[in-house]
Amino acid sequence: MIGFRDGATEVEPFHATNPATGEHLPPGFFPATPEETDLAARLAADAFAVYSRTSGKEKAAFLRKIANKIESVASEVIDRAGQETALPQARLQGETARTCGQLRLFATVVEEGSWVAARIDRAVPDRKPLPKPDLRSMLRPLGPVVVFGASNFPLAFSVAGGDTASALAAGNPVVVKAHAAHPGTAELVGCAVRESVRECGLPEGVFSLLFGAGARVGAALVKHPLVKAGGFTGSRSAGRTLMDLAASRSEPIPFYAEMSSTNPVFILPGALRERGERIAAGLHSSFTMGAGQFCTKPGMVFLADDTDEAPFRNKLRELVEASAEFRLLTANIHSSYQSAVANRKSRGTATIAAQAAEPSDSRGFAVGSILFETDSTSFLKNPGLDAEIFGPTTLLVRNTKRDEMLEIARNLEGHLTATIHGTDRDLREFAELISILEGKVGRLVFNDFPTGVEVSHAMVHGGPYPSTSDGRSTSVGSQAIFRFTRAVCYQGFPDRALPDELKDANPLGIWRMVDGQMTQEVNVPASSSRA
Amino acid sequence: MIGFRDGATEVEPFHATNPATGEHLPPGFFPATPEETDLAARLAADAFAVYSRTSGKEKAAFLRKIANKIESVASEVIDRAGQETALPQARLQGETARTCGQLRLFATVVEEGSWVAARIDRAVPDRKPLPKPDLRSMLRPLGPVVVFGASNFPLAFSVAGGDTASALAAGNPVVVKAHAAHPGTAELVGCAVRESVRECGLPEGVFSLLFGAGARVGAALVKHPLVKAGGFTGSRSAGRTLMDLAASRSEPIPFYAEMSSTNPVFILPGALRERGERIAAGLHSSFTMGAGQFCTKPGMVFLADDTDEAPFRNKLRELVEASAEFRLLTANIHSSYQSAVANRKSRGTATIAAQAAEPSDSRGFAVGSILFETDSTSFLKNPGLDAEIFGPTTLLVRNTKRDEMLEIARNLEGHLTATIHGTDRDLREFAELISILEGKVGRLVFNDFPTGVEVSHAMVHGGPYPSTSDGRSTSVGSQAIFRFTRAVCYQGFPDRALPDELKDANPLGIWRMVDGQMTQEVNVPASSSRA
Repeated sequence: MIGFRDGATEVEPFHATNPATGEHLPPGFFPATPEETDLAARLAADAFAVYSRTSGKEKAAFLRKIANKIESVASEVIDRAGQETALPQARLQGETARTCGQLRLFATVVEEGSWVAARIDRAVPDRKPLPKPDLRSMLRPLGPVVVFGASNFPLAFSVAGGDTASALAAGNPVVVKAHAAHPGTAELVGCAVRESVRECGLPEGVFSLLFGAGARVGAALVKHPLVKAGGFTGSRSAGRTLMDLAASRSEPIPFYAEMSSTNPVFILPGALRERGERIAAGLHSSFTMGAGQFCTKPGMVFLADDTDEAPFRNKLRELVEASAEFRLLTANIHSSYQSAVANRKSRGTATIAAQAAEPSDSRGFAVGSILFETDSTSFLKNPGLDAEIFGPTTLLVRNTKRDEMLEIARNLEGHLTATIHGTDRDLREFAELISILEGKVGRLVFNDFPTGVEVSHAMVHGGPYPSTSDGRSTSVGSQAIFRFTRAVCYQGFPDRALPDELKDANPLGIWRMVDGQMTQEVNVPASSSRA
Repeated sequence: MIGFRDGATEVEPFHATNPATGEHLPPGFFPATPEETDLAARLAADAFAVYSRTSGKEKAAFLRKIANKIESVASEVIDRAGQETALPQARLQGETARTCGQLRLFATVVEEGSWVAARIDRAVPDRKPLPKPDLRSMLRPLGPVVVFGASNFPLAFSVAGGDTASALAAGNPVVVKAHAAHPGTAELVGCAVRESVRECGLPEGVFSLLFGAGARVGAALVKHPLVKAGGFTGSRSAGRTLMDLAASRSEPIPFYAEMSSTNPVFILPGALRERGERIAAGLHSSFTMGAGQFCTKPGMVFLADDTDEAPFRNKLRELVEASAEFRLLTANIHSSYQSAVANRKSRGTATIAAQAAEPSDSRGFAVGSILFETDSTSFLKNPGLDAEIFGPTTLLVRNTKRDEMLEIARNLEGHLTATIHGTDRDLREFAELISILEGKVGRLVFNDFPTGVEVSHAMVHGGPYPSTSDGRSTSVGSQAIFRFTRAVCYQGFPDRALPDELKDANPLGIWRMVDGQMTQEVNVPASSSRA
């Protein structure tokens, strides 16, 4: 789907696999040829000249049209996504709503318009020793953006997911590399976007969707000289490979990879004592949600020492043992989960506290939930225990003293989230823990669970490396619009040659910083030095 | 100068050179040992825990104290800087004022406090299907920052220059690697900063200053695991080397290198006809200012065709021929300038339109100004002509047709600035040129010159690669405070555990986005779901 054109079908097709049965799903999908990849990038660069100057109102209409079109084919999308992912229908319905909600959130943001961070410093022609020029700056889009669909969110982090929505909202054309696990879902959503491009009268290069079963198509896009930024959600190894490609280009580009995170949870003494069972139930629901395949899955849980952990631990064991089987999304995730679990079992650094029955059905990618446990001494001695395992498992670290919690926190790599369960008193006693964790994660959660990432203005879904490639950004929420932008400054420009956002009369009525003060006022007086 | 400690003096010292005489200047300075480099990074990491939580008011007092202390030793600083750089006293006085002005601008920004981009999304406990949590985000510092002093701004881009000021303002400890060309100036300013740290009662690791004559000390700092970001101003080759080091770390870090820029100038037909002589005088002053060693020096000038260029060209030739000699800053810049000029002469792709007399004094780093010219056909055929030559020279590209200007603009690499001289009519006829240039530079200048970079809120001193390593940032102006920060989100936190910036009562009175609306209001009502 290269702009309005369809790709070649003379190449070897690949197929999606039904995770419930392990069987291939028709039809075949055709990997993009090198020429098609190049064409998509060139069309995107051509489209940039027009699309980068499209008004906020027009972009909002475009984003809303995409959302409407996705909703109009929602049942077909959910049906196909169900076959390709084995995710339950309710989850896919929720994800469809979330995807359309994201598009509409960005529509609201660009229609309102203040997101461009307009700043105006008025001229002072008689300043000594030198006149002060008129300077005005605002955020502008970067250029063609490559977006990689994620396996674990076939809608919300895929073809019309967060990165696509934020890139389009900011004025960047997008080339999506579909995830090979859900090509049919990708195609349905891609058609909705393509039709929206056409109906809005936008240049065809604003959106392309390419298929590919290996690393070739994605790597070619990241290396393409006309591509100016990228967004990725996936494994640490693939993310790092793409980051390194982006950084080693003759013209390095921003590349946002959201990779691995173990999302530590700290259960402090008061909370463990007062509501151990309730926390256990919430934790179980959180680490098994989506079969444990969320980037925010809590994968290590530190229990305070000197407290009766039995109600918490017994409840959690009971829930794990009673768990139904889970189906993982892909053969890769399935084999990685099995080998990571086997590895953890065999190394003897953690023991099994509870496990669900082995899956009855050996077809597809079924697995059972498993609860590991260890103690803080062993955790501190065995660094590998903090690694992410994608799937319905977590690690309890028992009897963790306050000092050990602080030491563990100080040694943490970057994570997307950290969670603290505590009482008011716990919070006072562990203030230092919060202070350390602030430097390690993008989001600190108190008395709740990290899964369930709200799409809103204050959300930060990002964190220091290796949770992401670039801890300065978020891939969820309206602040994601900033990732594919940069500020441009106009010096001494006549009013009529300025973008509307920077004109004296503030025709868009947006918030601007004028001489250092935030204001929504119209009619910034033109200084006498301006043409 | 490692925190409050002095470095070892048992190592081989190096000396600054007086560019006017070529003679070494006493005293010797001692390169940091690997142990000292490591200690500086460790002290900075230790200091981060305290300094990152220092209030805006306290940071403002600290920054103002640094400015006051620099002013109190200004005559000594200017005297020493004069010997180490051969820059005229008036320039050094101006640069001292600029440096102190920068520190005070950031003091004002952090004292006011709204820069943290606080966002509050209030909880909706009864939202269906799931409750909406309380989410609050703000910008936080990254950690220890390494700053490289620049040769061409011994004060404003050096020890207490823009990167140091913005990093300290945002709450990051700083380790400066002094430029080997002006160690004495660096030491005087470093003492002012160190005394300010002490008098403000801040941890010693907030600031260290290391010397080194080669690449070793800087590389060690960029690779140090405790260093979390870097800022550099200098050559493209050194910048790229450091960028690559930062990107290839096991934990890659943001690295802002401001490197090379040729700052194209387009002189459109109406302007060339109406005020050719005046533009020539402004251009001459701009490309010879600071002996042509500004990052914003206009290094290529495109003249419209079909217009009488004689008044412009004759005036410019006359000014170049009458130029006094210039002294370059370092032996490296001197030899690079001489070989670049010789290379341009010998390749035959440009001819000499005018040149000043050879310097009478062969001591030191004296050179004469030189004006090259070529035509647009030759420019388009010879890509090397767009390369930056650091020193008092520029290249006129004559008879450039409108289409050629557009093609040249489309083919440009990233630059810090682009400049257009035009009438109202020119601007209408060349609207497409502006549109293309917006994608190529950080600042577009109209009917003025790119040198003289205002330190203000709307300034953008940055641009796409290779003008900088990261076009999303600026190294001048108050927006530079964002480069060493990232957003952190707090979910479900009790009010008293939140930073002041995010508390319900808005005790700092800052601008915040509450449920998507900008407001300075106090007393965001706590929702019932909050502790």
